[in-house]
Formats: sequence, C-alpha cells, structure tokens
Amino acid sequence: MAKLGETLTQVLIPIAALIGIGFALLQWFLVSKIKLSSDNHVKPKNNLASAADDDDNEEGVDGTACVTKCAEIQNAISVGATSFLITEYKYLAVFMLLFGVIIFLFLGSVNSFSRDSQPCHYSKDRTCKPALANAAFSTVAFLLGSLTSVISGFLGMKIATYANARTTLEARRGVGRAFVAAFRSGAVMGFLLAANGLLVLYIAINLFKVYYGDDWEGLFEAITGYGLGGSSMALFGRVGGGIYTKAADVGADLVGKVERDIPEDDPRNPAVIADNVGDNVGDIAGMGSDLFGSYAESSCAALFVGSISSFGADHNFSAMSYPLLISSMGIIVCLFTTLFATDFFEIKSVKQIEPSLKRQLLISTILMTGGIAIVSFVALPSKFTLFNFGSEKTVKNWHLFFCVSVGLWAGLIIGYITEYFTSNAYRPVQAVANSCRTGAATNVIFGLALGYKSVIIPIFAIAIAIYVSFSLASMYGIAVAALGMLSTIATGLSIDAYGPISDNAGGIAEMAGMSHKIRKRTDALDAAGNTTAAIGKGFAIGSAALVSLALFGAFVSRAGIDSVDVLTPKVFIGLIVGAMLPYWFSAMTMRSVGSAALKMVEEVRRQFNAIPGLMEGTAKPDYATCVKISTDASLREMLPPGALVMLTPLIAGTFFGVETLSGVLAGALVSGVQVAISASNTGGAWDNAKKYIEAGVSEEAKALGPKGSDAHKAAVIGDTIGDPLKDTSGPSLNILVKLMAVESLVLAPFFAAHGGLLFKWFS
Amino acid sequence: MAKLGETLTQVLIPIAALIGIGFALLQWFLVSKIKLSSDNHVKPKNNLASAADDDDNEEGVDGTACVTKCAEIQNAISVGATSFLITEYKYLAVFMLLFGVIIFLFLGSVNSFSRDSQPCHYSKDRTCKPALANAAFSTVAFLLGSLTSVISGFLGMKIATYANARTTLEARRGVGRAFVAAFRSGAVMGFLLAANGLLVLYIAINLFKVYYGDDWEGLFEAITGYGLGGSSMALFGRVGGGIYTKAADVGADLVGKVERDIPEDDPRNPAVIADNVGDNVGDIAGMGSDLFGSYAESSCAALFVGSISSFGADHNFSAMSYPLLISSMGIIVCLFTTLFATDFFEIKSVKQIEPSLKRQLLISTILMTGGIAIVSFVALPSKFTLFNFGSEKTVKNWHLFFCVSVGLWAGLIIGYITEYFTSNAYRPVQAVANSCRTGAATNVIFGLALGYKSVIIPIFAIAIAIYVSFSLASMYGIAVAALGMLSTIATGLSIDAYGPISDNAGGIAEMAGMSHKIRKRTDALDAAGNTTAAIGKGFAIGSAALVSLALFGAFVSRAGIDSVDVLTPKVFIGLIVGAMLPYWFSAMTMRSVGSAALKMVEEVRRQFNAIPGLMEGTAKPDYATCVKISTDASLREMLPPGALVMLTPLIAGTFFGVETLSGVLAGALVSGVQVAISASNTGGAWDNAKKYIEAGVSEEAKALGPKGSDAHKAAVIGDTIGDPLKDTSGPSLNILVKLMAVESLVLAPFFAAHGGLLFKWFS
Repeated sequence: MAKLGETLTQVLIPIAALIGIGFALLQWFLVSKIKLSSDNHVKPKNNLASAADDDDNEEGVDGTACVTKCAEIQNAISVGATSFLITEYKYLAVFMLLFGVIIFLFLGSVNSFSRDSQPCHYSKDRTCKPALANAAFSTVAFLLGSLTSVISGFLGMKIATYANARTTLEARRGVGRAFVAAFRSGAVMGFLLAANGLLVLYIAINLFKVYYGDDWEGLFEAITGYGLGGSSMALFGRVGGGIYTKAADVGADLVGKVERDIPEDDPRNPAVIADNVGDNVGDIAGMGSDLFGSYAESSCAALFVGSISSFGADHNFSAMSYPLLISSMGIIVCLFTTLFATDFFEIKSVKQIEPSLKRQLLISTILMTGGIAIVSFVALPSKFTLFNFGSEKTVKNWHLFFCVSVGLWAGLIIGYITEYFTSNAYRPVQAVANSCRTGAATNVIFGLALGYKSVIIPIFAIAIAIYVSFSLASMYGIAVAALGMLSTIATGLSIDAYGPISDNAGGIAEMAGMSHKIRKRTDALDAAGNTTAAIGKGFAIGSAALVSLALFGAFVSRAGIDSVDVLTPKVFIGLIVGAMLPYWFSAMTMRSVGSAALKMVEEVRRQFNAIPGLMEGTAKPDYATCVKISTDASLREMLPPGALVMLTPLIAGTFFGVETLSGVLAGALVSGVQVAISASNTGGAWDNAKKYIEAGVSEEAKALGPKGSDAHKAAVIGDTIGDPLKDTSGPSLNILVKLMAVESLVLAPFFAAHGGLLFKWFS
Repeated sequence: MAKLGETLTQVLIPIAALIGIGFALLQWFLVSKIKLSSDNHVKPKNNLASAADDDDNEEGVDGTACVTKCAEIQNAISVGATSFLITEYKYLAVFMLLFGVIIFLFLGSVNSFSRDSQPCHYSKDRTCKPALANAAFSTVAFLLGSLTSVISGFLGMKIATYANARTTLEARRGVGRAFVAAFRSGAVMGFLLAANGLLVLYIAINLFKVYYGDDWEGLFEAITGYGLGGSSMALFGRVGGGIYTKAADVGADLVGKVERDIPEDDPRNPAVIADNVGDNVGDIAGMGSDLFGSYAESSCAALFVGSISSFGADHNFSAMSYPLLISSMGIIVCLFTTLFATDFFEIKSVKQIEPSLKRQLLISTILMTGGIAIVSFVALPSKFTLFNFGSEKTVKNWHLFFCVSVGLWAGLIIGYITEYFTSNAYRPVQAVANSCRTGAATNVIFGLALGYKSVIIPIFAIAIAIYVSFSLASMYGIAVAALGMLSTIATGLSIDAYGPISDNAGGIAEMAGMSHKIRKRTDALDAAGNTTAAIGKGFAIGSAALVSLALFGAFVSRAGIDSVDVLTPKVFIGLIVGAMLPYWFSAMTMRSVGSAALKMVEEVRRQFNAIPGLMEGTAKPDYATCVKISTDASLREMLPPGALVMLTPLIAGTFFGVETLSGVLAGALVSGVQVAISASNTGGAWDNAKKYIEAGVSEEAKALGPKGSDAHKAAVIGDTIGDPLKDTSGPSLNILVKLMAVESLVLAPFFAAHGGLLFKWFS
C-alpha cells in the first residue's frame, strides 16, 4: 500500500485547491491597489528606480485626463466582452441541455433504461450499478464540467478586462511595474482555473461516491462526463471567440492600417473596440476553457484507466487520486514559480521581459520534477498492475514518475521550440521578415514553410513522450504524461493570459492618446505576449495530443475492442476520413473569419465615408455596429464547425461502429496536431515579423522599415492572413481532437451495444 | 481456368502496347505537318470555317517574320530544357547506381549472400530461388524502372517543346486548330508513356521468367523493383523540376508583373525563358515520370499480391496478367476517346475547350467500364482465392470488375470535384476572386479555405473506393482499384500535357509579339489547361493514395506482420511521425522555391537596372544567367527533400523495425493526401481567380479588373503564393507517399530479417 493514507489524501487535495484560490485572490487584491480613478497620477518621487530605463520624464499627456479616458475605454471593453459572453452562454445553455438529454438517452438506452444492477463490465463476477445510473451521473458530470468551463472563461475575461487599463497606467511608472501588473492578473486567471478545476472534480468524485460506494468502475466512468462538458464548452468558446476577435482584427487592420494608414488601435477606427473585446473573449475566455478542458480530460482519462486497474480493484484511494495529487502539487509549485516573476526579480528594461517569462517555464518544470517524485513515492504502492487492453501490466512507482516527467519536459521542449520559431529574436522569424523585401508573396511562402518546419521537433517530442510512457505504463502512462504536461498549468495560463492583457493595455494606451514612450513600453510587453501566446498554444496542442491518445485508449478499452488494425477496411477508411476532418473544420472557420471580416471592412469603410470628421478625430465612430457584426457572425458561424465536431463521433459510432470510430479518432489526432501546430506558429511568426520591422532594432530591420514601407505593408498582409490561422483555426483544432475522443469515451457503452448500424444492415 | 489462354495473353499485351506506340507516332506525324518555317503563313482561303468565331481578319504582325521568331524562341526553350534534363539525369545516374548498390547489398544480406536455394516464403514446402537472386533481379528491375521513367519524362519534354510553337502558329488559323495541335501533342506523350511502361514491364517479366521458371513468388517480388525505380526518378524529377519552374515563375512575376508592370511572358523579362523551360521540365517531364511511377507501382503491387494468391500458386498466367490486360484495354479505350477530341468533334469557339476536355474524362470512363467487364470475364477464372494477411479469401471474377471500376469512377469524381474547385466557371473560384476586393490577405484566407474544403469529397471518394475494393478482394482489390483509376492514363496524360503546351504556346505568342487576338486564343487554351493540370494532379494524388495502400499491404504481407495495431507504442509513434513528414517535406520545398525566387528577383532587378534599353525593348536581356540560377537551385535543393523521402524507410525499418515503419507509411499516407490535394487546389484556384479578373467576362469580374487594378494586384500575390504549392510541394507529396511504400516493399525482406536494431538493443 501507499505511504499516504486515505484521510491525508482527502485533506491535502482540497487544501492545495484552496491555497491556489487564496493566492489568486491575493494577486487580484494586489492588482486592485492600482487605482483607476483620477487621483492616480504619477508622482516623480516614486518613480526613480523604475524609470531608470528612460532618460526623459513623463509628459503631460499622461496626466489625470488620460486616467479617466483609460477607465472609460476599459469600461467599454468590459461591457462589450461581458455582454457578448452572456449572449454566447445563452446559446451554450441551450446546447448543454440538448446534449445532456442526448447523453442521458444514449447511455440510458444501453440497457433499455432498466434500473436493475448489472454485472460489472471488467470484473464480471461482481455487481455494478445500472446503466441508467451511468446515464444520469454522466449527464450531471457533463453539466458540472460545462459550468466549470464557462465560469473559468468568464472569470478570466473579468480579471483581464479589470487589469488591462491598470497595466497601461502602471506603464507610466516603468516597464517593470506594468509587467508585474499584467503578470499578476494572468496569475489570477491561472490559479483560479487550476484550483477550481481540481476542487470541483474532487467534490464531484466524493459526492458520486455516496451513491456508487464500492463500484469505482461505474463512478469513474460517469466522471468522464466532466471532461466532455469542459471540452464542449471550450470548443464553442474557442471557435466563437476566435471568429469574433479575428473578424474585428482583420476588418480593423484592412481598412485602418492598409487603406487609411492610421495606427493599430487608433480610436478613430470603428472596429477598434470590437478588436479589443475580441482579445478578451477569444484569447482569454476561449483559451481558459480550452486548457481547463485538457486538464479535466487528462484527469478523467487517468482516473478511468486507474479505476479498471489495481488501484480501482484494490480500492486504494490514495493511488486512485494520483492524478489529483499531481495537480495539487502543481498548484504549490506554480505558486513558488510565480514569486520569481513578481517578487524575487525585478524587470528593469524591455529586454528582460521575454527571458523572465521563459524562466517561468524552466523554473516550474524543474521544481515540478521534484514534486512529481515526491507524489509518486508517497501516493503510489511500490508495485501495482495497470490495465493494458485486455491484459495486465505490472508497473513500479518510479515508472509513473518517468511517465509524468516525460510529459512535463516534452511540454518544455515544445514551449522552447515554439518560442524559437515565433520570436523575432531568432533567425526563422527574421528570415520571414527579410523575405518581405520582395513583397507579400514571398513573405507568405516563407511563413508557411516556417510553420511546416516548426512541426518537426514538437512531433518528435510528443512521439518520445508517447513511446516512453506507453511502454512503461500503457494507457495510464499516456494519461499521466498528459497530466504532467498540464501540471504547471497555473504558470502556463499566467504567462498565456499575460499576452492579451498586454495587447489590450497597448490598445488602451493608443486610444487614450498616451505618449510615445508609454506606447513603446506596452508594445514591448505585447511583443513578448505574442510569443507567449504561441507557447501557450504549443502547450495546448501538445497536451491535447497526449490527452486524446489517452482518451482514445480509454475509449477502446471501454468499447471492448482489442486492437485497432489499420489493415482492416473499416479502420482504414476511418483513419483517412479522420485525417481529413481538421481540413474540413479549418475550411469552415477560415471562411467564417473571411466573410465576417469582409462585412466588417464594408462597415468600417462606410463609417469613414459617411461620418464627417471621423478621420480628423472630431467625430466619434459608431463602435456598437462593429461589435454587433462580430457578435452576430461568431454566434452564427460557430454552429457548423461545432456541429461537425460533435456529430462526427455520433454518426461514425452509430452507423459505422467502434472500429471506424477508432480510425477516425486516430486519423484526426495525427493529422490535426500537425495542422494546429503549423497554423499557430505560422501566424505567430508573421505577427512578430511585422513587429520586428516596426521595432527596427537591428540594421536588417531598419533597412526593411519603417512603418508604411513596402516591406512593412507586405508584413501586414502576412500578419492579417495569420490572424485566423493562429487564433481561430489552429487553437480550435486541438479541441476538435480532444473533444471527439472524450465524446466517444463517454458514449462508448452505447456504441458498443448498438453501434455500426450501417455495416449490420449490409452484412 | 480463364477463358483466355496463355498464348493469347502473351500476344495481346504486346500488340496493345505496339498499337499505343503506333498511335503516338501517328499523332506526332500529324503535328509535324505544321511547318515551323517561313513558308507557313496563313492563307485566308483555308481559314473560313475555323475563323468563324472571329469577326476581323488576321493582322500583319502575325506574318512570316513572326514564324521565324516563334521558331527561335521554341529552339531556345528546347535547348534549355534538354540541357537541364541532361544535367539532372547525370546526377540521377549517380543516385541510381548508388541506390542500386544499396538495394543489392541490403537484399543480398538477407541470407548472407548465399547462393543456395531456400524454402519459399509463403509456401514453405516448396523451394525458391536464393535471396541473392532477388537482390540481383530487384536491382535490375530498379534500374529498368528508373530508365523507363527517365525516358518517359524526356520524350514528353521533347514533344512538348516541339509542339508549343506549332500550337501558337495554329492559333492564327483559329482556336480549334490550335486546340487540336496541343491536344495531339499531349496524346503523343500520353500514349508513348502508357505503352512504353506496359511493354517494358511485359518484357521484363518474360525475361525474368527465363531464370525464375516456376518460382513466381520470387519473380514478382523482384519485379517490384521496377516500381521503385519509376518512383524514385519521379521524385527527383518532380522536386527538381518543380523548384526550377517555380523559382523562375515566381521570380519573373515578382519583378515583371508587380514591379515593372509588364505583361507575363514579356520578352524583356530576363527570367522568361527560364520560366518557359521550367514548364517543360517540371509540369511535363516531372509529371510524366510521376504518373509512370504510379502506373508501375500499382501494376507491381497487384502482380505481387497476385503471385502469392491462387493465380500464382496455380500458375495461371492469364489471371496473373490481369493487371497488364487492364492496362492494355486502357490503351485501346483511350485511343477511341482521343478521336472524340481530335476528329469526331470540332472546337469552334473558346467556350467549347473546357467542356471538350471534360468530355474526354467521361467518355474514357464509360468506355473503360465496358472494357474492364470484358477483361474481368475473359481473363479471370470465375472463382479464385486471394491472399489476405495470412488468411485466404474466396473471390469471384465480377468482384474484381467492381474493384477496378470503383477506382476508375472514383478518379472521375475526383477529377470533376477538382474542376469545380479550380475552374473560374464556378462559384468557389469566383468567391476567391471577389475577396480580392479587400486585398491580398482576404484572397489568401479564402484561397486556403477553398483548398481545405476541396479535400472533403475526394477523401470520401477514396474512402469508398478503398472500402469496396478492400471488402471484395482484400489488398489485391485495392491494387486493381488503383490500376482502374490509372487505366485511362493515356487520356489523363494527354489532357494533362495539353496544359503546359498551351501555356508555352501563349508565352511564345507574347514573346513573338503576335496580335492581341492570337494571344486571347492561347489564353483561353491556357486557362482550360490550368484546370486540367489541377485535374491531373487530382488523379495523381487519388491514385497515389490507392497505390500506396496497396503497396503498404504488400509490404505488410512480405514483412510477415499480421496486424498494424495503432494501440501499440511502436506503431503509434510511427503514425504520428509519418503524418508529420509531408510538412517537413513541404517546408523544405517551399523554402527552396522561396530562396531561389529571391535570387532570381535580385538578378532580374539587376538586369533591369544594369542593361540600358532593356525596358524600352532595344536591348536583349541575359536569359542564360536566369536559366543558370534555376538550374543550380533545383539541382542543389532537390537533394535534401529527396534524401528525406529515400532515407526515412531505411532508417525507420533498420532501427525501429517493421511495425514502426508500417505506422510511418500509414501516417504519411493519410496526412500527405490531404496536404497534397489542398495545396494543388488552392494554387489552381488562385491562378484561375487571377485569370478570371483578367478575362473580365462577367459583370463581377469587370468590376474587379482590369489588369493592374488593386484587386488584380491582390490576385497576382495569391497566384504567386500558389505557384510552389501547386507545382512543387503538392504534386511531390504523392510521390513521397508512394515512394516510401514501394521502397519499404522492396526492402521488406531485409527489414524483416535484420530490422528494428534500436528496439533490439534496448530490450
């Protein structure tokens, strides 16, 4: 048995979650001390240390009036984002209820809605709860997951729109203080989400246990609904938010930057508020839901496989809780890591921002490796057996240490490689920028090539992680490797949320008419944010690959198939069609952004033509119409791609059966990962190639610039093309992959019992 | 037994091949009657019927002087193409010898170079020829395949450069006559290639039989080397030719069209000869080698699987020759089909060109369906057993009829869908053109979305073909389905080669300074050619998918593995890494084109600045330097992607073993097909969106145009980006997929005996 007793386990997990929540609230409190009222003006005497990087004093333009202006803009963004999310959530509520009914009916029908107990699926000699209970509890877990996901996204958006103007104001006091403000706000989101996800899951398990008692097989089968709920909300959040933000962004850029030659985020641009709202609903709320979904799914996959292994059979609660304990340890480790960014070091110049963010990844990974060792040796018996597709596999506790660690370190490698390919501090992005000399076409060719190339090492990292963890501990190994990659999620989310907050802060500085110096500081924060956003997407995709494979394995176990042989026609057609789905999905989302952007362009052009004095800054644009265009487009256009993802497993499983569905899942996984990585990195690289030309820090960059040069115009075209790739299609694809897998797992009992109608008719 | 006796089979196959060659020579003779000398001037009295679509008479500018000019330009193109191909073939000869040695050593080492006979692999009770014989004959077959491939490409190039100026001259006599000249020339290539491929294979089988005697297992195992030879030459041909042509094309366009505002193919542009040479070495020679490779591989895969089934065991030569008989029938069917284009109907106006080409596909498919029925009922026994991964499957002759037909019709569907997504007669391309209103960025976003979307139906068509043929006749079914798709290869190649010939004809008309009217006719021929080129690529990709799967199945049989289970770590890591390879490969080729184009741009700019009078047309540009840039770039840059493809199976098989290699093959197949289809169609759509704006045939198109408008400039950027996608990366990817599969099959005995070193060391 494990060294850690059940009671201690039962205490430690909620304590870790509560510490995380407490830490998040503390960060929020610290951010809230930045006053967003007219009495917040910069006193030179407080400003000595942090202004060391500047050689001139603040300008009058950053005075009291501009604080009021910032507050106003922040309010407009916050109101816009809140109102959009609430509208979106109304649609999602309808979907949640409908899909909840589908889950209940499908799973209830497995045993004709009988309320009688049945022999267990894996240990036939024991009696388990009825299939109807699984239907009911899965539905409840699904709703819980959905709600937690929605709350995670909403809270993230709230803190982000609370922090953006405060970051702008802090930028007057120096880049270090602005960085800390943005980073703390990111941490609020990171810790709230990680702790919340853990706490709700913990409470759900304990509540479900009241009914299920000793039937852990049934208990953890029902818990998988939590993952499904989390991911299905994430899908709509990412797609809807992604379309919203990119329709506004592309539309604003095409008229503002290209036609009218006004800067980004210029308050004269009618689409500028929609653009800033978009950052919060897409990059913040969407991404929060996404990573929460990954976290919930990898936990559920590990718990499910654990429940049908010796952990479950022996009713060893501490070992069973291994995934939750890893997450608990992760919260504590990330807490220490955060202090390195906010308290132990101080950012004194613009150049220190990116290294400081990168250091977060490294510190959390090193500390967490120790944390994993502790949890593995304390919570696990020294030897145990794991389920391995019908057979059993004997595993030692240090094997699991390696499984979790290999996931964790693979995540770090993916993060670093993503940085290398998307940061303009390195050669790849510089080469893309340089290709702008010959125009937009070469820029796009080089950018696409860069994205394709950036896939290579992450795929090898994922492959090695899969091979090691699969060989050591079968499917459980994969699930905990995914969990390992996500164990530092609080830090990952902090640096991830930092990006859009800085982006917004820059936008507010521009709109409030702050001085060039302030804008330069927020630009530097933002450029680092672009890279961290790409890193965050890299993590999301890498973990999605591992999570999906774990879910896929769990699905195969639950569906009762022993092998997924590529050389059977049923599997192969699934494989090739599955590999096509990311393309179908991307075609829909890219086109949606394109069409919505066209509408946005027309509206922005119309306003510039119809409103006298708009260009001169004497009249105000009609922001609300642009917000409405984005809102309408995203709500309407998120349905078809959402339906594609949600219906594919239903159709494949019901009509073609579990073998074809297995093929679809494997195909979508291996193809989707590549499309997602290349799309995000291409987009990130184009964005930073443009910023490289704008910043003009090297001789090469100066020769390409300045803003408005032909090379810069070519770079802007690349950046615009990259927008839907990196913020709509790319990041949604990892949800496509995960969601189909978890949906298949939850509905596996139905497919196993009644699936494959079409082949049954024909044979 | 079959109704068709062995003697008749032995006679019919070479007769069909000889008829094909005769027909090709006849077409060549007819084309050669168009004189490329100064006595070829247009006599109005011969011109009544075909000039019906024109309302004015020929202009003086198209007189005798311009015939001489055409002959000069043709000569320059022909010399350039010949010299490039000969240089390329020198490199390839070195590669061929090296790889021949590798094949010999790897296969010879299987049984330690022993010259003793050994028990057969599949029927252990019989004695077969030694492994050393397999090594020797596989090497010979490899060399034969390589040579045939090279000859196919070279002959295609020769006839294309012979026909281009003749097509231009015929355009003076009306669009119908120009069409016939271009089409006949395409037919020369199509029939020569199909007949040649068949004849060489037939002779090789009969010669090998002299040694192998009754050991058909060994005979047809050695014959697979023929496919490997064909495809490896095709790889270098496609990649080298693709880089050559697109470096020149992109470079010429970026300076000529975008910066200097001179028309495409303007003789003042220094890169214009390189561009036209490129069409012949890339689109003609490269594509010829590619389709020959597919044809050789599908024949070899079918023959190999047949040899280890009852056809081989019973030594039923007619049934064994079923794949060759299908191809023989294909030649005869295509011969009739060609007459519909050249003799039975006459093209009277520009609008009839595309329907006429489309009709070719439909006619050949309908006729061939009957042909397949005849061959299936005559050559096959009514009932026989096929090998099905260790077990046997009883099959009836009409099952094979369905297998071949489903491949044939899937090809037609892919062709039609490709046309729908790449021709500007339909909505998708028009929507892309329309998105140019808001600039290049939306054009690219819509184009990428179109490419992604165009994948959906072809994948379903391929999936259905696979399911039907796999279910009916196991791996043999897949192989003959591929052969079905390629059975009308002579027609497919005719309309495919027609494209670049018309493109060149247009270029020559422009360079020779012919009148606007002539140029308009050649433009119409060219626009139809763009679509047929996309259709040809669709066929190439679709058939590559089927061929690869058949080869993959044959490899698995030969390597002695019973199943390829995705849920084993060895297979899964292969699958995900395999799915990554198309991206790695595309990254290399896209970047190569990008870099070479940058060099070309610099040279063209330099010449415009350094040569006085060049812009005014009083001085001649230095064409040779541009040709040299393309040549050097393509020869240097084709090596890394070539090495990636050739080495991957060697490394995966030797170090990771046959399971991982199986995963790599399956992953590359399901992922590569998608990337290839979307890349070719996106590129084709951009090209035709640009042509749509230029032609201005609808109200919408007129509002976007004319040439030089902002929308047109945006369309040119899309077209330029599409160039490497549709002519370098996309079409090379299907060779990547096929080649890795056939290489694995040829080297399977080695991998099965000595492979998986790394896993052996670790375990």
